[in-house]
Amino acid sequence: MADYRTSALKSPIDVAEYLFLRLQQIGVDSIHGVPGDYNLIALDYVPKVGLKWVGNVNELNAGYAADGYARVKGISAIVTTFGVGELSAINAMAGAYSEHVPVVHIVGTPSTASQKNGMLLHHTLGNGNFNVFSDMSQGISCVMEKLNDPITVASQIDHALQQCWIQSRPVYLSLPTDVVQKKIEGERLKTPIDLSLPENDPDREAYVVDVVLKYLLAAKNPIILVDACAIRHRVLDEVHDLIEKTNLPVFVTPMGKGAVNEEHSNYGGVYAGEGSQPDVKKRVEASDLILTIGAIKSDFNTAGFSYKTSQLNTIDFHSTHITVRYSEYPGVHMRGVLRQVINKIDLNRLSAVAGPTVENEVDNNDDGTPTITQAWFWPRVGQFLKENDIVITETAQGTFFIWGLAREHAYGLLKQLPSSLPLSQNSTSDYADTSISNFGIWETKFPKNVTALSQVLWGSIGYSVGATQGAALAARDAGTSRRTILFVGDGSFQLTAQEVSTMIRLGLKVTIFVVCNDGFTIERFIHGVDAEYNDIAAWNFKDIIKVFGAKDGSYKTFQIKTKAAVNQLFADEAFNAAEVLQFVELYIPRDDAPRALKLTAEASAANNAKQ
Amino acid sequence: MADYRTSALKSPIDVAEYLFLRLQQIGVDSIHGVPGDYNLIALDYVPKVGLKWVGNVNELNAGYAADGYARVKGISAIVTTFGVGELSAINAMAGAYSEHVPVVHIVGTPSTASQKNGMLLHHTLGNGNFNVFSDMSQGISCVMEKLNDPITVASQIDHALQQCWIQSRPVYLSLPTDVVQKKIEGERLKTPIDLSLPENDPDREAYVVDVVLKYLLAAKNPIILVDACAIRHRVLDEVHDLIEKTNLPVFVTPMGKGAVNEEHSNYGGVYAGEGSQPDVKKRVEASDLILTIGAIKSDFNTAGFSYKTSQLNTIDFHSTHITVRYSEYPGVHMRGVLRQVINKIDLNRLSAVAGPTVENEVDNNDDGTPTITQAWFWPRVGQFLKENDIVITETAQGTFFIWGLAREHAYGLLKQLPSSLPLSQNSTSDYADTSISNFGIWETKFPKNVTALSQVLWGSIGYSVGATQGAALAARDAGTSRRTILFVGDGSFQLTAQEVSTMIRLGLKVTIFVVCNDGFTIERFIHGVDAEYNDIAAWNFKDIIKVFGAKDGSYKTFQIKTKAAVNQLFADEAFNAAEVLQFVELYIPRDDAPRALKLTAEASAANNAKQ
Repeated sequence: MADYRTSALKSPIDVAEYLFLRLQQIGVDSIHGVPGDYNLIALDYVPKVGLKWVGNVNELNAGYAADGYARVKGISAIVTTFGVGELSAINAMAGAYSEHVPVVHIVGTPSTASQKNGMLLHHTLGNGNFNVFSDMSQGISCVMEKLNDPITVASQIDHALQQCWIQSRPVYLSLPTDVVQKKIEGERLKTPIDLSLPENDPDREAYVVDVVLKYLLAAKNPIILVDACAIRHRVLDEVHDLIEKTNLPVFVTPMGKGAVNEEHSNYGGVYAGEGSQPDVKKRVEASDLILTIGAIKSDFNTAGFSYKTSQLNTIDFHSTHITVRYSEYPGVHMRGVLRQVINKIDLNRLSAVAGPTVENEVDNNDDGTPTITQAWFWPRVGQFLKENDIVITETAQGTFFIWGLAREHAYGLLKQLPSSLPLSQNSTSDYADTSISNFGIWETKFPKNVTALSQVLWGSIGYSVGATQGAALAARDAGTSRRTILFVGDGSFQLTAQEVSTMIRLGLKVTIFVVCNDGFTIERFIHGVDAEYNDIAAWNFKDIIKVFGAKDGSYKTFQIKTKAAVNQLFADEAFNAAEVLQFVELYIPRDDAPRALKLTAEASAANNAKQ
Repeated sequence: MADYRTSALKSPIDVAEYLFLRLQQIGVDSIHGVPGDYNLIALDYVPKVGLKWVGNVNELNAGYAADGYARVKGISAIVTTFGVGELSAINAMAGAYSEHVPVVHIVGTPSTASQKNGMLLHHTLGNGNFNVFSDMSQGISCVMEKLNDPITVASQIDHALQQCWIQSRPVYLSLPTDVVQKKIEGERLKTPIDLSLPENDPDREAYVVDVVLKYLLAAKNPIILVDACAIRHRVLDEVHDLIEKTNLPVFVTPMGKGAVNEEHSNYGGVYAGEGSQPDVKKRVEASDLILTIGAIKSDFNTAGFSYKTSQLNTIDFHSTHITVRYSEYPGVHMRGVLRQVINKIDLNRLSAVAGPTVENEVDNNDDGTPTITQAWFWPRVGQFLKENDIVITETAQGTFFIWGLAREHAYGLLKQLPSSLPLSQNSTSDYADTSISNFGIWETKFPKNVTALSQVLWGSIGYSVGATQGAALAARDAGTSRRTILFVGDGSFQLTAQEVSTMIRLGLKVTIFVVCNDGFTIERFIHGVDAEYNDIAAWNFKDIIKVFGAKDGSYKTFQIKTKAAVNQLFADEAFNAAEVLQFVELYIPRDDAPRALKLTAEASAANNAKQ
């Protein structure tokens, strides 16, 4: 395998070894993925450099897991094989792109010679086009590099990993089988990849800081609203310092859950327009200046575009620009601007009016029956959670529990919504859909340093199970013993259930709550919807952990059907310690319609009546 | 929802109703897919027009199932939702494109207004680009139509369905939520879509027929070799008539399995170059004229490009052209040419020399031990199969059982292969991979009218489980009571296992053989391969059917570990009747290296020695 240039290299190293060492340097300790013929030789280098190979059950799950790993550990990598493997993972990669998660996607491809000769290989379309699959990933990758030439491979890798980190989005690397073992210069590894953000232009930054300060000091009751990109683009230190320094009330969006310390006295709750608790809605919408940090104002994140705030009262901080009212300042990263605002603000001139306080409202939401209700359960979870927990909620779970409660239910609820709603008059069904945003986990006040994972924008059902594997492994790789707790509906769970077997094999001691709606009897919540339409298979979860390979004593299963049983479980010392894999079937009646859905439906009906 | 043009329509009909009625007209009785917010309104029309909704467990499985359905029933349809849903299915759609399977992919999208306004909706990348996902499907769809305008929708649908059928490849239809209920002209439904193949230009066809006949009549020992596209492009009637008329020996490729009646006295076996049985290889390669019908000469289908036949002795019949030796005749479909050859051939001048005969060689492959071996098992399956059975083999199963026997085993075998092999000197690992082609099901002589499903070209692991659901449902929808029998390795099974729950819910009485390699103990077949590298979770299959929701009495499970137990099972009347879902754990030792792998390795080693 000697390369003709090898003699000129000071410290010759194989391409794949270089790549995996670089990944290790930037914080990737485990590689997700599925083996396949075109990546097998590359995978040899995973253990060789001291990385762990996860070996997921399928590629979509691997992609979700890599996403979860990156959200906890900062960055991740997944290896798939050409065509079949990469396409199976593409939904997960698109999700990572959509939600700003840095995942390095390495695709093992046929050799450069096979590609050049257009050979009729398996995993191709049979048409000699070897670019068709990489082309598909172009729109969901911030950088794409084809590692075809040993001369440029090292700089391509370094560039891709740097941009993956800085832009916080997936990159795509294709690695042909014949390049894997080519020799390149290993000396380069002694210089770490520069992951620091480029500094803002000082004059430009100073100008923006002045503008921000002018409006901030003029405001009577400003607030801070923290959203997803504050987490993804790593400005949480700045956010925390801003809160401490200014003493302003701080709120989070659904996608911003976990960004701030919710035990802090300034924490005021979750703002999501019509989906908010009344006192939160009132306080946020009465504010004359909202500092939104890393906002993604998507439908689900805003309870159907139902913000009642004005852009005239808003300063948006982003990783690529700042918007003050309607003035845009491109090319300025929020990090530098926030830091200068913290440094320069004259506290004597700042008006900081306290916001609402948040508690886990368990007693107020106890309807006196033994039945577990959503309104009661989520604040109760808040009492169960501990500092440093990682909480994963299924997409729809974080927003509403829709799939969790069963697809038919969700469908029924969707159909019951008024057909014409505000803000999106021409797109009835889109809006009907967006209006289902709800609390679920939003009603849960977190202890300090809880990390929350949910895919509110991309919203791919089944994501949470894969993400849980990745998140739990990331916590372990980081040398921490954080509990990893998943809440997923039984419908959602079915899409990616088998990834639990990877958790079992890796010995990850996760706690999984599968929310069951009375066993999916085929009776209908909504009449008039045809039976076949709504069928989902009823799984018997009792034995699933064992089927997926868990040894006796390495796991516990629970069936929880009453509030008292929840209380008992949450009081149990062993359950809290989570020293084995724990699988909880949690029964919540499927006719327990989420609060925010009702709110939104009422609001829109009222709005309709006005017209 | 009245359209302004509705008053001008003779029989106004909603767009979605038109679409589903058209699908019904061309033979789709069940719609595969997963519900999602952007397709829910459309799904209302599925039961309305009398179609059945399958409701798969996830979209990739749904895509595989649709592929399987189309291979049995002629065409199929899958409905997914924008972004997340369609991307989860895209690997399956690429497979259908690669292997010439007609699947109609309908994607429910946000409304035209939302798209126009670039709204920040869930299931988007958050960048306002609503074309990025459909762009991804462009290269794997023979037609793409965006159903945005009621004026053109009907003709777009008709064109897409027609081309789906004729080109035998997937088409992609995007259906915005606001178009679903728009009114269009229903009168059009009275005229069926013309699915007939365009006739060849008569002069051109006659010319080609003359050339073919010239070489055919001049040949001393011509043979027929039938491949995948003979099935996919529906020329099996012509193939059968050609065999009957000419009395020529007929062989099939791995992808051509099931194309011809293997009980016919002219049937000579499976030809796959070095992967062939010796007498088959000898006869085919000694032939001075091979009529290949619908060939896809891919690596796996040719045992690593190991045909020892000359293009000078070959006439290739395709759906788009005919190649006689090195002369190409574009724009001629094989169907017309084959029909004319049958009609015109002068049998007095044709030399038809009998080929080898094929039996299921059970006794010759009995090593006298109780252990089930591959060499013994596959011919034994041939004795078990009945007329009209549908047999699905996992991709790698059909070629080698590689994943079936466990990924680590396969990996180990790959690594043991000589690193330099003929025919592909610059792509060692590609070839190493292709060289693993093997018999498995190729060693099985089928009864009449057995349909075989395997994804030899695309080769996506996990395909077979989804495809089995689709195939079994297709058989039922067609009003037949064909047995549907799956052979899948335990490794492959894990990728898509949960689709068994759909089979259970639909009451499909499939027979599933999961080939287990002694429980996946972590000991290694090949030393020197790192442990983590090769780990796969060991599942306890015993309870899996019950976990997936099967009621007692509706299924049977079996654990089969010896030849005697296989014989007993195959002799069991109830098992043969297959009146419940049957799940068989079949234990074949993982160190039972496939015959053709050994053959190929030996052949290539010999070839190496020559250099």
